[in-house]
Amino acid sequence: MAIKTDAPSERTRVKRGFKRAKYDRQTVCDILDAVPMCNVAFVLDGMPVVTPTSHWREGDHVYWHGSTKSRLIKKCAGKEVCLSVSLLDGMVMGRSAMNHSANYRSVMLFGKASLIKDRDEKREKLKGMIETLFPGRWDMLRPITDKELKATAVLCLPVDEASAKIRTGFPVDDEEDYALPIWGGVLPISMQMGAPIDDPRNLEGVEMPPALLNFKIG
Amino acid sequence: MAIKTDAPSERTRVKRGFKRAKYDRQTVCDILDAVPMCNVAFVLDGMPVVTPTSHWREGDHVYWHGSTKSRLIKKCAGKEVCLSVSLLDGMVMGRSAMNHSANYRSVMLFGKASLIKDRDEKREKLKGMIETLFPGRWDMLRPITDKELKATAVLCLPVDEASAKIRTGFPVDDEEDYALPIWGGVLPISMQMGAPIDDPRNLEGVEMPPALLNFKIG
Repeated sequence: MAIKTDAPSERTRVKRGFKRAKYDRQTVCDILDAVPMCNVAFVLDGMPVVTPTSHWREGDHVYWHGSTKSRLIKKCAGKEVCLSVSLLDGMVMGRSAMNHSANYRSVMLFGKASLIKDRDEKREKLKGMIETLFPGRWDMLRPITDKELKATAVLCLPVDEASAKIRTGFPVDDEEDYALPIWGGVLPISMQMGAPIDDPRNLEGVEMPPALLNFKIG
Repeated sequence: MAIKTDAPSERTRVKRGFKRAKYDRQTVCDILDAVPMCNVAFVLDGMPVVTPTSHWREGDHVYWHGSTKSRLIKKCAGKEVCLSVSLLDGMVMGRSAMNHSANYRSVMLFGKASLIKDRDEKREKLKGMIETLFPGRWDMLRPITDKELKATAVLCLPVDEASAKIRTGFPVDDEEDYALPIWGGVLPISMQMGAPIDDPRNLEGVEMPPALLNFKIG
């Protein structure tokens, strides 16, 4: 049975709850950018492993980095992975147990992770990590050393085989249940940034760059 | 090389950043309970797949549910999975790019997911889902029907092969970098519940049960 879909591949096509699915680049990228933490799944000796890690996006690629010795780097380089970004936006409370739900945004991204091998390119990508999250900060920092660069690996995944899923709004109850005197509604949930906390080891007179407050989350 | 560890199994043992690792039941459960959203990884035709879903914990088991037709249910039942719960608690800003980090809490849980087959047990578990998240709500709801029960599957994973990883606090910079006039610190991040929103289809006079405000997130 062929289903009309914009999904870029069969494994990307959302089957359950497909009305919540979106495949357009803007929606996918907005979710990838909403929180700098993803979960990367890979297969290790035939078994599934999923590890949270920080990620960032530049253009048509998602990146993550780590020690060259980390399992998440060594076991993903050149391999098929599935990367998930998910945000919980609310608890949805219907008039029956099974019509309770959650509001959320999520992206699943499939593909082969590739290692950035060229050292200059790797430096550019690590600069991209800092500048994506905190524009302007790279130039304020102690420059990256060759030793650090050598010890750090960057993995890259194209934003290509991606699907997004979004649920918003109120419960969808069975029509007859709306006549029941049961409260339905939503408990909204959001990620919030608190006031920055100075490192007690900051030198006297060193102030937080105000641009850091531009950091967006959620 | 044998490393002294409390890890319940080799695949559970945290290798990188092992000083951040914890294996005690209380720490693991506190993180599992902190947010009702996890990512479940499984292997499908040799490829990794990871899907976000709602979960809850009762005692020594984590549960999630879904349509009996959902891929996450069908492909995980009786299979090895890896379940991840991760919370981003802050952005950690050091004096150099590579000493930027994140504060977080995460749990990785390995094991074989099993289907709750007995119908009465399944009903009890679904009640447990509602009561874990919203104590007292089950009895306020339109009772679950046999049809709903039949269409819903519950999967179960023992909290057994689990590891937690936690990072808190300030950047850990290279000792000589503390002498630099660069701001270091933390941007705290937290999940917050907003004011509940009434479903516009609530009957007149139906008020939100105040106990729902006991819902805890983060």
